[in-house]
Amino acid sequence: NKTTKSKNITSSNRIAVIIAEGEIVGGNAEGVISSDKFAKEIRKARKDDNIKAIVLRVNSPGGSVVASEVIWREMAEAKKVKPVYVSMGEVAASGGYYISAPADTIVAQPNTITGSIGIFGMMFNAQELLNDKLGITTDVVKTGELSDFMNPTRPMTEVERSIIQNSVEDGYETFISRVSEGRGMSPEAVKEVASGRVWTGNQAKERGLVDVLGGLNTTIEIAAARIGAMDDYRVVYYPTKKPWFETIMEDLG
Amino acid sequence: NKTTKSKNITSSNRIAVIIAEGEIVGGNAEGVISSDKFAKEIRKARKDDNIKAIVLRVNSPGGSVVASEVIWREMAEAKKVKPVYVSMGEVAASGGYYISAPADTIVAQPNTITGSIGIFGMMFNAQELLNDKLGITTDVVKTGELSDFMNPTRPMTEVERSIIQNSVEDGYETFISRVSEGRGMSPEAVKEVASGRVWTGNQAKERGLVDVLGGLNTTIEIAAARIGAMDDYRVVYYPTKKPWFETIMEDLG
Amino acid sequence: NKTTKSKNITSSNRIAVIIAEGEIVGGNAEGVISSDKFAKEIRKARKDDNIKAIVLRVNSPGGSVVASEVIWREMAEAKKVKPVYVSMGEVAASGGYYISAPADTIVAQPNTITGSIGIFGMMFNAQELLNDKLGITTDVVKTGELSDFMNPTRPMTEVERSIIQNSVEDGYETFISRVSEGRGMSPEAVKEVASGRVWTGNQAKERGLVDVLGGLNTTIEIAAARIGAMDDYRVVYYPTKKPWFETIMEDLG
Amino acid sequence: NKTTKSKNITSSNRIAVIIAEGEIVGGNAEGVISSDKFAKEIRKARKDDNIKAIVLRVNSPGGSVVASEVIWREMAEAKKVKPVYVSMGEVAASGGYYISAPADTIVAQPNTITGSIGIFGMMFNAQELLNDKLGITTDVVKTGELSDFMNPTRPMTEVERSIIQNSVEDGYETFISRVSEGRGMSPEAVKEVASGRVWTGNQAKERGLVDVLGGLNTTIEIAAARIGAMDDYRVVYYPTKKPWFETIMEDLG
Amino acid sequence: NKTTKSKNITSSNRIAVIIAEGEIVGGNAEGVISSDKFAKEIRKARKDDNIKAIVLRVNSPGGSVVASEVIWREMAEAKKVKPVYVSMGEVAASGGYYISAPADTIVAQPNTITGSIGIFGMMFNAQELLNDKLGITTDVVKTGELSDFMNPTRPMTEVERSIIQNSVEDGYETFISRVSEGRGMSPEAVKEVASGRVWTGNQAKERGLVDVLGGLNTTIEIAAARIGAMDDYRVVYYPTKKPWFETIMEDLG
Amino acid sequence: NKTTKSKNITSSNRIAVIIAEGEIVGGNAEGVISSDKFAKEIRKARKDDNIKAIVLRVNSPGGSVVASEVIWREMAEAKKVKPVYVSMGEVAASGGYYISAPADTIVAQPNTITGSIGIFGMMFNAQELLNDKLGITTDVVKTGELSDFMNPTRPMTEVERSIIQNSVEDGYETFISRVSEGRGMSPEAVKEVASGRVWTGNQAKERGLVDVLGGLNTTIEIAAARIGAMDDYRVVYYPTKKPWFETIMEDLG
Amino acid sequence: NKTTKSKNITSSNRIAVIIAEGEIVGGNAEGVISSDKFAKEIRKARKDDNIKAIVLRVNSPGGSVVASEVIWREMAEAKKVKPVYVSMGEVAASGGYYISAPADTIVAQPNTITGSIGIFGMMFNAQELLNDKLGITTDVVKTGELSDFMNPTRPMTEVERSIIQNSVEDGYETFISRVSEGRGMSPEAVKEVASGRVWTGNQAKERGLVDVLGGLNTTIEIAAARIGAMDDYRVVYYPTKKPWFETIMEDLG
Amino acid sequence: NKTTKSKNITSSNRIAVIIAEGEIVGGNAEGVISSDKFAKEIRKARKDDNIKAIVLRVNSPGGSVVASEVIWREMAEAKKVKPVYVSMGEVAASGGYYISAPADTIVAQPNTITGSIGIFGMMFNAQELLNDKLGITTDVVKTGELSDFMNPTRPMTEVERSIIQNSVEDGYETFISRVSEGRGMSPEAVKEVASGRVWTGNQAKERGLVDVLGGLNTTIEIAAARIGAMDDYRVVYYPTKKPWFETIMEDLG
Repeated sequence: NKTTKSKNITSSNRIAVIIAEGEIVGGNAEGVISSDKFAKEIRKARKDDNIKAIVLRVNSPGGSVVASEVIWREMAEAKKVKPVYVSMGEVAASGGYYISAPADTIVAQPNTITGSIGIFGMMFNAQELLNDKLGITTDVVKTGELSDFMNPTRPMTEVERSIIQNSVEDGYETFISRVSEGRGMSPEAVKEVASGRVWTGNQAKERGLVDVLGGLNTTIEIAAARIGAMDDYRVVYYPTKKPWFETIMEDLG
Repeated sequence: NKTTKSKNITSSNRIAVIIAEGEIVGGNAEGVISSDKFAKEIRKARKDDNIKAIVLRVNSPGGSVVASEVIWREMAEAKKVKPVYVSMGEVAASGGYYISAPADTIVAQPNTITGSIGIFGMMFNAQELLNDKLGITTDVVKTGELSDFMNPTRPMTEVERSIIQNSVEDGYETFISRVSEGRGMSPEAVKEVASGRVWTGNQAKERGLVDVLGGLNTTIEIAAARIGAMDDYRVVYYPTKKPWFETIMEDLG
Repeated sequence: NKTTKSKNITSSNRIAVIIAEGEIVGGNAEGVISSDKFAKEIRKARKDDNIKAIVLRVNSPGGSVVASEVIWREMAEAKKVKPVYVSMGEVAASGGYYISAPADTIVAQPNTITGSIGIFGMMFNAQELLNDKLGITTDVVKTGELSDFMNPTRPMTEVERSIIQNSVEDGYETFISRVSEGRGMSPEAVKEVASGRVWTGNQAKERGLVDVLGGLNTTIEIAAARIGAMDDYRVVYYPTKKPWFETIMEDLG
Repeated sequence: NKTTKSKNITSSNRIAVIIAEGEIVGGNAEGVISSDKFAKEIRKARKDDNIKAIVLRVNSPGGSVVASEVIWREMAEAKKVKPVYVSMGEVAASGGYYISAPADTIVAQPNTITGSIGIFGMMFNAQELLNDKLGITTDVVKTGELSDFMNPTRPMTEVERSIIQNSVEDGYETFISRVSEGRGMSPEAVKEVASGRVWTGNQAKERGLVDVLGGLNTTIEIAAARIGAMDDYRVVYYPTKKPWFETIMEDLG
Repeated sequence: NKTTKSKNITSSNRIAVIIAEGEIVGGNAEGVISSDKFAKEIRKARKDDNIKAIVLRVNSPGGSVVASEVIWREMAEAKKVKPVYVSMGEVAASGGYYISAPADTIVAQPNTITGSIGIFGMMFNAQELLNDKLGITTDVVKTGELSDFMNPTRPMTEVERSIIQNSVEDGYETFISRVSEGRGMSPEAVKEVASGRVWTGNQAKERGLVDVLGGLNTTIEIAAARIGAMDDYRVVYYPTKKPWFETIMEDLG
Repeated sequence: NKTTKSKNITSSNRIAVIIAEGEIVGGNAEGVISSDKFAKEIRKARKDDNIKAIVLRVNSPGGSVVASEVIWREMAEAKKVKPVYVSMGEVAASGGYYISAPADTIVAQPNTITGSIGIFGMMFNAQELLNDKLGITTDVVKTGELSDFMNPTRPMTEVERSIIQNSVEDGYETFISRVSEGRGMSPEAVKEVASGRVWTGNQAKERGLVDVLGGLNTTIEIAAARIGAMDDYRVVYYPTKKPWFETIMEDLG
Repeated sequence: NKTTKSKNITSSNRIAVIIAEGEIVGGNAEGVISSDKFAKEIRKARKDDNIKAIVLRVNSPGGSVVASEVIWREMAEAKKVKPVYVSMGEVAASGGYYISAPADTIVAQPNTITGSIGIFGMMFNAQELLNDKLGITTDVVKTGELSDFMNPTRPMTEVERSIIQNSVEDGYETFISRVSEGRGMSPEAVKEVASGRVWTGNQAKERGLVDVLGGLNTTIEIAAARIGAMDDYRVVYYPTKKPWFETIMEDLG
Repeated sequence: NKTTKSKNITSSNRIAVIIAEGEIVGGNAEGVISSDKFAKEIRKARKDDNIKAIVLRVNSPGGSVVASEVIWREMAEAKKVKPVYVSMGEVAASGGYYISAPADTIVAQPNTITGSIGIFGMMFNAQELLNDKLGITTDVVKTGELSDFMNPTRPMTEVERSIIQNSVEDGYETFISRVSEGRGMSPEAVKEVASGRVWTGNQAKERGLVDVLGGLNTTIEIAAARIGAMDDYRVVYYPTKKPWFETIMEDLG
């Protein structure tokens, strides 16, 4: 539900604070950072002319690369038309940094865990569980070596490993370029602080991955100053819940 | 429930966005891509003259070949009368690609997992679980070697294996021909990128399996441009929920 | 609940589509193909003069022979007074084929799993589970060798096996004759494609077990053409739910 | 709840169809064939002068001998005053045949599993479970060798075995006499097809245990013909639910 | 709840049928034969002048001796002022016979399991479960050898055994005298059919433990004949539920 | 809830029957004999001048000594001002006898289990469960040898044993004196039938621990005779439930 | 909820009875003796001028030392302005004695378990459970030897042990001084009966830890006598529930 | 919900008491000390001009360093504009001390567990659980040595350990400086009592980590005295619940 707090509750200078907490996943699930849902929230804030600035509050260890890319794109779109800020919570690492990269200013706590610019994939092989612990064996019939790609009932093959490796490296290059573009650093400079290394907020600031140390309030104040409304702004939180009568009208519409 | 968003909420240029997420299965189940339900949704969009274009949002690792074929057929039917587009999410592989094949344009994220054009079947044999772990033995009485086809309490026979192999290969040929037809590639060309191999969105674009890199919004804009309504269209999401009074009327009808 | 869709919602040319999905069992259970319930639905459609044709949608790997026979009989009855069609889904094998046999036309997907004309019985012996795993032994007192027929706490006897074998073979002969009669093939010809062998829709069509390749819509259109109502028919789905006031009236009646 | 279907809904020629499915047990339990409940239903149908014939639909592998006898007696009583029929479903064996024996005509499916005229008792001994698996031992103090008759914590004694054997044989003689009387066969003739042997409907018909092959509808039509009301009868199903206001009145009465 | 059925619903000749099913226990529990509850029901029927005869329907393998005695006493009291009958169901053994003993006439099914006139006690020793399986040991501090009488964490002592033996034998003598008095047999004659031996209804009739073979209806008819009301009586079932307003009045009273 | 039954429902000669069933524990718990709750009920009956006599119905194997003492004291107080009776159910042993001791007359069934005048304590040592079965070890830091008195993670010490022994013996002496006082026997005479020995009602009567054999009704009649109201008394059961409006008034008061 | 009982329901001489049962813990939890909640209740009774005396009913084996101290302090504060009494139930040991110490008079049952003046701490080490039983190992990174103080995944260190020992001894000295002050005994005298030793009520009275033997009623009468209101007082129980409208008003306030 | 207690319920001198109990975590969770929620509560109290002083009641063993920092910052902000006090409950150690550091006065119980100024991290390695106990193996594909940083399916590497060590040491330095600033001690002086050592309230007072010994009431009185309102103040508890109509208005706004 939408809650408001503000210096001036009737002010037309609105700052949208979008709270993104948890793993980054595809789709519309609740309780995580689901890409379709958050992309929609950011887009809504971008298109609302009453919103003068956007603050994304990030508290996430990362997750799906594709989902991160979807949210990243909306962040990049938003940045084209209004100032965008990121306030990092306890952790904003890997995909959590990915979606933060486009911000005008990144604000972190001194002890925020951030960085972890890198990608990895983990594959499970439950063959022994099935065969030995449960006594179930499996037979596979297929049309090509890779038709049962990532079948969890047998060890990963070398071909599978190289496909995953390529996919992971592709994703890594994209990740590097997103950070490079967002932070105004060369890809090489980004790679020096990447490779999955994690940094505290303090260390990240020294390495250019973070601009300011502080909390959510600090970030809101930076945003308010940027839009020239230090004493006359209203904060609106997202995601908002749809009013019940609107839900009904759509049902009947 | 039906939700709408649009450039112009009263526009008569409607674009149907059909969200297909999860495993592809037969029947009408919720929470997956059930063939009867999605075939009905696509058919409804095809028959509704207010719908000027269809966008299928695909996020699926595949599933049943027959269910994929059912949805494919409706996609192919729809394409005959109005433009049809596919927007691929995190994964649109195997059956997820199958149902995408008829689209005028396939749009994928750079890191979308796609391809996996191939078929496989996996059979479980729980004989040891029953006999040794649980201490239950079974007796089978039958009228022909194959009457207990795929009985999971014993190993698969060679005859069973070859029947499954044939069935799988049949399905593979159909799959190849669906892609060949949809993408305008020769069957041979399709087979070179098939055999179950998976590709990222980037790789798939190089190989002709994808046309454009981008997200759902990009896809909607391509559709809007195609129907000459860049600034005057309305997006309608499917599946829609039936209004309650209609449910009652049918009950009484 | 009853849903309707149609070319012409007021048309008096009604086609009944009966959706039969799941295992075939006796009685009236929900969520499966229960023989008493489906026999009643088919009979209702047969007796309703507004229904000009019946389409049975079959998605079933089979089940009880007796239950299949009960449904078969209603199908055969219906066929005497109005055209009857079958649309096969992902699988229509064994009992699923049994109940399909009387149809004027059988329509299958190319990859439908069908055939499996044969019968088998599987008996479980939990003696080791009881004696060794749980430490429970049993004593049986009886009036004849077979009074504890199929007792699951001991191995099956030779006499039991031969009784089951006879019962299974009896059922097989009936099954063969049902297919022979329905498909206009000699029993010998049926036996050549029987013995439990499974076929894809494509293979079944070559062997005369299926008439047309296509989906549910194709089947409805064949039915509409047959009753000379290609553009003026209404589809009614079964099973229908009874209106609430009727339930109350019966309670009071 | 009571449901009606009929050739003529206002006909005064009513045929009661009593659906008996499941195990045969004593008492009033729901979801099985409980003797007190079904005896009451049959008695109600016997005493209702509007009921011209009774059809018992049997789908049961048997159960308690005493409970079968209770239902048998009501069937025999009913037969004295109006025609009584049995329609056998998938299985009507052992106790399921016992309660069918008095019928004027027994109708079975060709594959109905019937017969199993015989009795057995199975006693469980959980001594090892208690002593060895759970580590609980027991002490028994009693006033006679048999005071802890059938105590499941020790093996059955020879005396217990012979008592059970006698009880089982007593029950068998009664069973034989019930069938002998109902089917008009000599006890010796019954014994030749008894001893617990099971038969298909076809086999049972050859051996005189069944009169006609067919389903429930066939049975109803035989009953309608017998009461001279082939085209003017109404079918009433049992058990009926008591109307709510009657329940309240009794509460207050 | 109270239900009524009758030859004449307004007749003032009422026969109370009290349904006693399950284990015999002390107190007021539902779903079993709880002594306080059934004693109250029998007493109520005794004191109600409209009740001309009582029929106790017994379906019980027995239970607590003290609880049986409590119910026995009310049966004996009732017999002093009006005729009392017992109808035995599937089993009326041990305590189930105990409470039946005072009846004017005992009616059983031919296969009723009855008799088992005897007493036993079973004591569990969970020492090994605690010590070895769970790893819990216990220490006992007490003021006399028997202060932890029947402690289930150690084996039973010889003294405990003899106390239990005496208690069991005391109970047995009482049991014998209840049967002797009720059936008009000498204690010696009772002992010849006691010692815990079980009998079928047929055998029990030969040995004088049962008077008539038949079911509940037979019993009711015997009762109706005895009160000279064969065609003019009303059957009232117990236990009755108390009307809701009476419950409220008591709450306020 | 309060229920009433009586010879004369308007009689001012009320007899309170207090039903005490289950283990004897401290506090106010439901479903057991909780000392504070039952002490309150007895006190209430003592103080109510309309109550002319109290009958405590006891069905308990005992429990806490302190809780028994609390209830004993209220029984002793009540006896000072009006007659008090005990009716023993299936078992009234140990603490169940303790609370019965003050009664003017103790009535038991012939097979009531009573006596068990003695005390014991059982201590559990779960050290092996924790250390060996679960793999958890513990460390204790304390200020004196006994600060972790009765710690269940180690064996009991000799000092602990002697403290418990003393406490148990103290309680025993009190128990003996309560019985001695209540039954008018010397402590030595009580000890002869104490030491935890159990007796049937019959045996207890011979030894002076019980006065009369009979049930609850007998006890009520003795009480009615004692207050000279054999045909004019009203029985009121306890515990009573508080009327709802009184609960509300207190809430507001 | 607040309940009242009294000699004179309108008397202005109120005695507050505060029921404290269960473990002593910090915070506001229900169902235990939570320090903040009971401190508030005692404070409320202290500040209410209508309350002339306070009775704390204690039934507790102890718990947290800090929580005991919090309640002790309120008891000590209350004693300064009005008489305070303690009535001990089944057990009032360790922390249960701690909070009783300030009372003007301590009343116990003869068998009350009390004393246990001492402190101990128990630490669990689940290393073997994690490492061997579950197969999970742990790594710790820290800034000082004690930063993972009391880490339950490894054995306790000597330094940890001495810290805990000191803390326990500190607490012990405070405990001793609370008792010394409350009972008017020298610390040395207290230590002689401390060291964690437990006493029955009888033994505790001999040693000066308890003043009077008796129950809650005795305690209330002592309190009534002390305030000179033996026949004119009203007892009010705590904790009281807040009336619902007050809860609402606060919500709106 | 907001509750009020006060010397003068209409006083405009309000003291806010904020109850912080449990682990310190990020976000807005209930039942713990969640940083965003408590930061908001403290900020609200800071900005409310009716609040003259703030008392933070701390009962916490610590938790997340970043979350502690977030709350610390709001405490430091509050202290700039109005007096701030801390009342320590049973434990206020590690993060619990961190958030207490800015207070004007810290009040603890003598036995409060406090100190533990230090930081540690614990990493779990479930490799053996997966591989050996469950029979599941894993494969990792990654773009740099650290891309699967803290992967719990393998042992921690030396590089990971040093990163964690650095992060922990960074956090430690910040912790030391927060205490140094808050308590007016040199960092060196703080370090002497830090290194994770725990202290009782008494010991902490000697070492300058605590100012006064006492409970919550003492703390409130110190605050009242400080604002010159010893006899005229009102205590308001936080967190407050939002009135329902405000929730609705926001929904519609």
